[in-house]
Amino acid sequence: MNVAILGYGVVGSGVAKVIADCATGSCLNYVKDLAVTAIVDIREFPDDPYADIITKDAAKVFADPSIDIVVETIGGATIAYEYTKQALTAGKHVVTSNKELVALHGAELLEIAAEKNVRYLYEASVGGGIPIIRSLRRDLAGNRIERVSGIVNGTTNFILDRMEHGGIPFGQALTEAQELGYAEQDPAADVDGIDARRKLAILASLLMEEDIPDDIIYTEGIRHLQSVDTTIANRLGYKLKLIAAMTRDSEDRMTLIVAPHLVGETHPLASVHGVFNAIYVTGNAIGDAMFYGQGAGTLPTASAVVADIIEIATVPYHEACVERWLPLETDRLILHEEAQVHAFIRLSSAIADRVISALAAYEPRTVITENNSQAIEVGRSVFMSEGALAKCLEEAGVSTDDYAVLRILPL
Amino acid sequence: MNVAILGYGVVGSGVAKVIADCATGSCLNYVKDLAVTAIVDIREFPDDPYADIITKDAAKVFADPSIDIVVETIGGATIAYEYTKQALTAGKHVVTSNKELVALHGAELLEIAAEKNVRYLYEASVGGGIPIIRSLRRDLAGNRIERVSGIVNGTTNFILDRMEHGGIPFGQALTEAQELGYAEQDPAADVDGIDARRKLAILASLLMEEDIPDDIIYTEGIRHLQSVDTTIANRLGYKLKLIAAMTRDSEDRMTLIVAPHLVGETHPLASVHGVFNAIYVTGNAIGDAMFYGQGAGTLPTASAVVADIIEIATVPYHEACVERWLPLETDRLILHEEAQVHAFIRLSSAIADRVISALAAYEPRTVITENNSQAIEVGRSVFMSEGALAKCLEEAGVSTDDYAVLRILPL
Repeated sequence: MNVAILGYGVVGSGVAKVIADCATGSCLNYVKDLAVTAIVDIREFPDDPYADIITKDAAKVFADPSIDIVVETIGGATIAYEYTKQALTAGKHVVTSNKELVALHGAELLEIAAEKNVRYLYEASVGGGIPIIRSLRRDLAGNRIERVSGIVNGTTNFILDRMEHGGIPFGQALTEAQELGYAEQDPAADVDGIDARRKLAILASLLMEEDIPDDIIYTEGIRHLQSVDTTIANRLGYKLKLIAAMTRDSEDRMTLIVAPHLVGETHPLASVHGVFNAIYVTGNAIGDAMFYGQGAGTLPTASAVVADIIEIATVPYHEACVERWLPLETDRLILHEEAQVHAFIRLSSAIADRVISALAAYEPRTVITENNSQAIEVGRSVFMSEGALAKCLEEAGVSTDDYAVLRILPL
Repeated sequence: MNVAILGYGVVGSGVAKVIADCATGSCLNYVKDLAVTAIVDIREFPDDPYADIITKDAAKVFADPSIDIVVETIGGATIAYEYTKQALTAGKHVVTSNKELVALHGAELLEIAAEKNVRYLYEASVGGGIPIIRSLRRDLAGNRIERVSGIVNGTTNFILDRMEHGGIPFGQALTEAQELGYAEQDPAADVDGIDARRKLAILASLLMEEDIPDDIIYTEGIRHLQSVDTTIANRLGYKLKLIAAMTRDSEDRMTLIVAPHLVGETHPLASVHGVFNAIYVTGNAIGDAMFYGQGAGTLPTASAVVADIIEIATVPYHEACVERWLPLETDRLILHEEAQVHAFIRLSSAIADRVISALAAYEPRTVITENNSQAIEVGRSVFMSEGALAKCLEEAGVSTDDYAVLRILPL
């Protein structure tokens, strides 16, 4: 089968490499011959081995009947969106690693694919190389998935690891991540949780079979965290991780959140270090399972793209290929304000009394004092909602420099 | 689609339950209607909700054109073998959780399936609910898998955990496992590594696309281990785990071993506790990945069986469904004697001098003394083969009560 790659950058070049490796025997035998026969990029690559097939003319590629599969590794939701619509409309299967586009326009693009009897596959958009999309959609299709808790952003996991093990502040850990190429010069999408929230929106849409817009998800990043938070976490028997979580209750309503969480130190997610990702899944039949691997990088991401290509190349199009994300029924979503919270709150000494007094009705108790901070626990003895917590903190008039809510990941 | 279940025991009844749950909305929408319409068992179940469809007459079930898929959850390799051949020959797809049968006769049964244009699927035979078979065969089909290291037997993992955390001897931990239903009354298949070796044979056959007989795999169980071994492991920064490992070298030759291994305490496999399983995979593109979950039990195993059923029910039979394990080319197998070993060896004080003297040429060094035992290291400074190690131990005339080889899992 002939593959065209749109966007010859970090991931696109990895896809070309993995497909070339397949031809020399890396692939299992059932994999059909794959060949990259066109690459679309606005840049010039005169010395590249694929120089002959690199073009700026995407329209020509979409009109070429010899091309079966189009790989979109451009990123962003502008040109990538237009090209994806054009390719699907032209009857090409499209494979993408673009989480922003899938989170934003996945429902529409899946619908176009369904109308054209082609596939829009997005394994690489969550968890890099980890085969989490197909595992959820196919291997666990017979399960009712009750909870998904993921470390789906390697940059923030690396930063939190360095804050914990190096005892360094957030800013210094971020600089290290940038120097190592793990963080962008503008790190907002990672450190503010936007990237994680897109991935959660994709997983939730897939599982609920409804289109979950990522911007309805309550999101906290890690910018406000201090190394004392990792110290407090460790002293209480936890690791501090940025978690993207979906919980489905018995009435099929879901809670979605991206925020720093305390993960019990013996929980499998606690041992996910550096830029690795892991998605922890609980289903009614499988029980607890976890999928772990590299969440980014040229070859791991290309591995997932090529998995999608192999599926298209080897499995004939059939009825179950159709995936639809219907419009969201809003009553299936539990509002963040109504969700239950059980957390430790790190407070600077200067504001501790004020906050404790604002929280009095919820029986906060101080559990740890560490340097100029203390941690209090809420939500264990008395039920507390996220809305009530937010209101108390607002009443106390605190700023994000003075506190951090460290929610406890349920076991 | 209509499903018949052969063997209405722990797993078979779980399959019936998960299929029933699907009908009430647990499954994703694309899953076709599934129904259990026959159950074959030699026992009587007068009060069972499926009593009406339970029969002793397997031949009638295989002759029934309304049955599409036969689930074999009998276990063993006698009746299960005959029934599987009959069902495939009658043109039924067969789904199994029977690792013994797949390890022993997988190549032949896959061949019959290929001839009949039906499928023989065995997801549940390795790792219980963990979707490891399909992940390797399909999601990682574009990778050259270089190493697989698995904790694939929950019973032994539970026993080692208890020896480590409870400080109790092997015998007592085994009794606990039996009382909890984690170990059989005759625990040999688990504690002697036979079960793990069958699962390794299945994974290796799938990845090498050749029929690897399980009895050619060098196998050590955990019966000879003492709690001092877990103490030594911890003091050296490791956890002690029974590992089933396949390594493929650059010339496509493989090493296979089942034995207790030292796993670095920050390695993801180190945090696999109790009866959980995990398979750690290294591929040329994906890098390191791990698949974790419950390796046994009614519903987790049923989850994997139902995943196979859903695949058959939703994906039309196609060319890439054909899986063949060709006869093993023996030169692709590195003999155990020739494999490199790097290990700590626990020696009782009574025999330490004798063993150290027999190993003199390999520069053993004592690294830890603990009660009446010491641990020496071999294979770090001077290359040592498994054959040389075995010879030295034989020369020293030691018995398995006096020592344990604790191999180090490569990073």
